[in-house]
Parts: sequence; structure tokens; C-alpha cells
Amino acid sequence: MNGTSYFIDWHGGSAMAKPEVGEPVLDRAFCLLGSFDADHRVQTLAGLSRRTGTPRSTTLRLARKLTELGALERDEQGRYAIGVRLLEIASLAPRGHGLRQVAMPVMEDLFQVTRQHVLLTVRDEDQALLVERLSAHDAGAVRFRVGERMPLTSTGGGLVLLAFAPVDLQEQVLASYRAERTPDQLHTDLRRALAEIRRGGYATASQDKPWPRSVAAAPLRDGTEVVAALSVVTPSADFDPMYHVAAVRAAAQAVSRQLNCLC
Amino acid sequence: MNGTSYFIDWHGGSAMAKPEVGEPVLDRAFCLLGSFDADHRVQTLAGLSRRTGTPRSTTLRLARKLTELGALERDEQGRYAIGVRLLEIASLAPRGHGLRQVAMPVMEDLFQVTRQHVLLTVRDEDQALLVERLSAHDAGAVRFRVGERMPLTSTGGGLVLLAFAPVDLQEQVLASYRAERTPDQLHTDLRRALAEIRRGGYATASQDKPWPRSVAAAPLRDGTEVVAALSVVTPSADFDPMYHVAAVRAAAQAVSRQLNCLC
Repeated sequence: MNGTSYFIDWHGGSAMAKPEVGEPVLDRAFCLLGSFDADHRVQTLAGLSRRTGTPRSTTLRLARKLTELGALERDEQGRYAIGVRLLEIASLAPRGHGLRQVAMPVMEDLFQVTRQHVLLTVRDEDQALLVERLSAHDAGAVRFRVGERMPLTSTGGGLVLLAFAPVDLQEQVLASYRAERTPDQLHTDLRRALAEIRRGGYATASQDKPWPRSVAAAPLRDGTEVVAALSVVTPSADFDPMYHVAAVRAAAQAVSRQLNCLC
Repeated sequence: MNGTSYFIDWHGGSAMAKPEVGEPVLDRAFCLLGSFDADHRVQTLAGLSRRTGTPRSTTLRLARKLTELGALERDEQGRYAIGVRLLEIASLAPRGHGLRQVAMPVMEDLFQVTRQHVLLTVRDEDQALLVERLSAHDAGAVRFRVGERMPLTSTGGGLVLLAFAPVDLQEQVLASYRAERTPDQLHTDLRRALAEIRRGGYATASQDKPWPRSVAAAPLRDGTEVVAALSVVTPSADFDPMYHVAAVRAAAQAVSRQLNCLC
């Protein structure tokens, strides 16, 4: 993914964050769970201990307990991985699978019409979290992973979420964006771009690096609140994303209408 | 869902299980997380305390800590829900989203051809856990929720998973199935049915109650091990599920081939 240079680590809820109130066992447990990532889906006890900086005996005790609780699973070689019990609990996150359940049929339609990557993202602090992705076989290499975090300024969906985020968060991102801007930036003037997104009700962007793509994105609303963004990504910088804007906006409207009905 | 009468609660990894080794804070934290379900996606502090049988002060301390860690989130009214951070961690479960990532494009194809419900399930102890579902707008009411558990004997995918499960687990399920069988049962002779599923490499079933449906299911293999089941559910007891068997088996083969390549 591009834009890791924009990465601003003020996310207080991160698993690796220092404990603020005293439940050190919970901190260590979530540190251990948080040490799994796309490059470390399966870890040995030694690896877990090393990556979390936790003594081996403590790691073993915690890993055993988390396995007993179903949060971890062991394979035949005794290595640890995230367990399906955690998937079961996580599936109840209203901003994740709950939203996804409502959005999915409409995303299907959008996917069948565009035959590209259709993405559903939510904002978590200053980052975009990919909740769902549908990708056609022929839509080019998959660059996004469900559950992955991206800087808000690095994706079309993220720009939509940022445009409708609280003003103080926008100012924080704008300040750090200016400090860290690179030639790869999506927009020459982010503040103006955000105002345009709010006015038009959609975002478009095209860029060539680090990989060519064009994106059209629109907000999903629960009442007046923007709760997620829907986007279509085409793996070409030459494709005019305006061709997808009407479809993405109509799809986003359809999901928003259903979200409102649920209230 | 049908078949809750078959439900056998020997699942030692359940969040509500009694602690076996001493990390009472972790037990209480997972008990609290496990108290969320489809009917309790959003809970007040009082509700959490009542449903977990934990004193209010302890519940508050734990809920605060879990919110700090991102495992819980609070809405405007201060009520708690499962947080997207948990979705992020859970997305790394190899048996959940990892599998899903490989299976999804093939499930799309199967979905577009059949226009019914396409399900991906894994086994967790004696239960089937729904990892993914694609449903056409016109495929009838949605009866399955991603993240939901079902008895192995109540679904086509579950029967496939049971047929290829360790023999001692099969015997346990068979014993309790006989003890609790009802007129709604999918098969008159479960043991024979499981042998047929192993021999044929697929399962079919039709039933009228509690809601009409026909299902065709096939195993997904990682090497020689059956790791999941793929199924197509048609909301009619009169539909001949054999019409879908070849498609489901071919799709399952395609996913299995890709799983093997990843090793």
C-alpha cells in the first residue's frame, strides 16, 4: 500500500498501546493477539515471546489460556494462530459485519455492473479499516485485505470518511499531511478536496504510483451521520472515475436507506 | 434455525466455559465479550453486568479497559458494542478470513450461476461456524448470519464437516443425535448418510421444516485434510439439490487446489 509515510500513530486504542488503567493481563493478552498480522498469521511460542517482548513462561501461560478461550488455535506443529471464536465475537461488531450484512447485496450489484474492486471501509480514529471487498477475477491484483488499515488520505473511501469526520480530527490529519506530503499525494490541496467531497457527496481520485488506479467513493449514512464509505477501484490511472460515480452514489443511497430503516 | 434440540454443549473453548487455568481477568473479559449475540449487539453497563453475573464495578472496570483496547466501542448513549479492532484481529484467523479470501472469487462464480445462498462453513468442535455467505436478492429470506454457529447435523455443510471429522467426535454426535432425534431430522440414518458423504464426496439434503430448503455441499481440502465446506442452499424442499452438486464440487475443487498451492 502507498502512503505509509502519512501514518500518524496517535491511535490510543491500538493493541500495542501502553496500559492506562491497571489490567496488565488484558494488556499482555491483547498485545499477544495484536502481534499477529498479514506476515505473521501463524507464530511459534518463541516468535510470540520475541515479537511481544514478553518472557517465554508468561507467553506460554497466556497463549494456553487464550487457546482455552478459543481466541487462539494451534496447528499440528503446535504453532499458534487467531481462532475462529474471535471471528464469531467480532462478527457482532455493528460497524463491521452488521454494516456489511446490510451493504452486501448492494455491493454485489455494484460489483456485477463494474467488474472491478468494490470496497466497504469504516473510520477508526485517523485510519480507514477495510470491512469488505469484492473483486472480479479480472480486476487486476488484489491490493487490499479485509481487516487491513490504511491512512485516510491514501484511499478514496478514506477521503470520504475524512471529509465527514469531526473537524478537530481533520485538522490533525491536515497538519501532519502537510508536514509529510510526498510527490505521491492524491491531492495538491487536501483541504479544498475535502470541501469538494462534502459539497458533491462523492470523491474521485486517480494516481499512477505506487500502482495505477482510479477510485470513485461515496458516504454511507445512518441518519445524518456518515458511518462508512463505499468505493469502486479500477486498476488504471487513465480510467475516468466519473464513469462510476453515479453507480457508487446510487448504491450508497440504497444502503443508507436500509440503515435508516433499521433504526 | 432448526435443530437447536440437537445442540450438545461440550464445547470446552466456549467463552462462557469455567476457567481451567488461573487468569480470572481474561475469563471475565471473554465472558463479557461473549455476552454479545445477535439479540444483544448493543448493551448497557447494567445489561452487561446482569448477563455476565459480574458485579457492576468489575464490569465497568473491564468494559473501560476493553474499550481502551478497541475490543469494545461505545455509542452516543454510552452503550457498549463489539469494536472494529476485534474485527481487525479476527480477520487474521486462517480458518476464517484467510480461507474466505481464497474461496471468495470461486464463491462469486457459484453465486452468479445459481442465484441462491452460497455458504462457507468451518467446524469448531461439534458445531459448524458460518464464515461467509453470499445471497441473491431473490433467494428468499436470509436464515444464516456470518459468525453464527449451528449444530453439525442441521446443515448440509455441517454434515460434510462431520463426515470427515475425527471418528470419536462422530461417535459423540451420533450418540447424542440418536438420543435427541426429532421428526425434523435431516436423515433417517445418520451413520449411513455420513458414509455416503465420504464415498461420494458431497452431501445433499432436502427438508420442509422448520423452513423449506434443499442443500448441496462439498468439502474443501487443504492437502488431505478437510478444512471447510462449501454449500448452495435453495429455499425450497422440492428443488432437486443434485442439480447443484456438480457445480458445488467443481467450485470446492478449485478452492482446494488454491489452498494446496499456498502451502
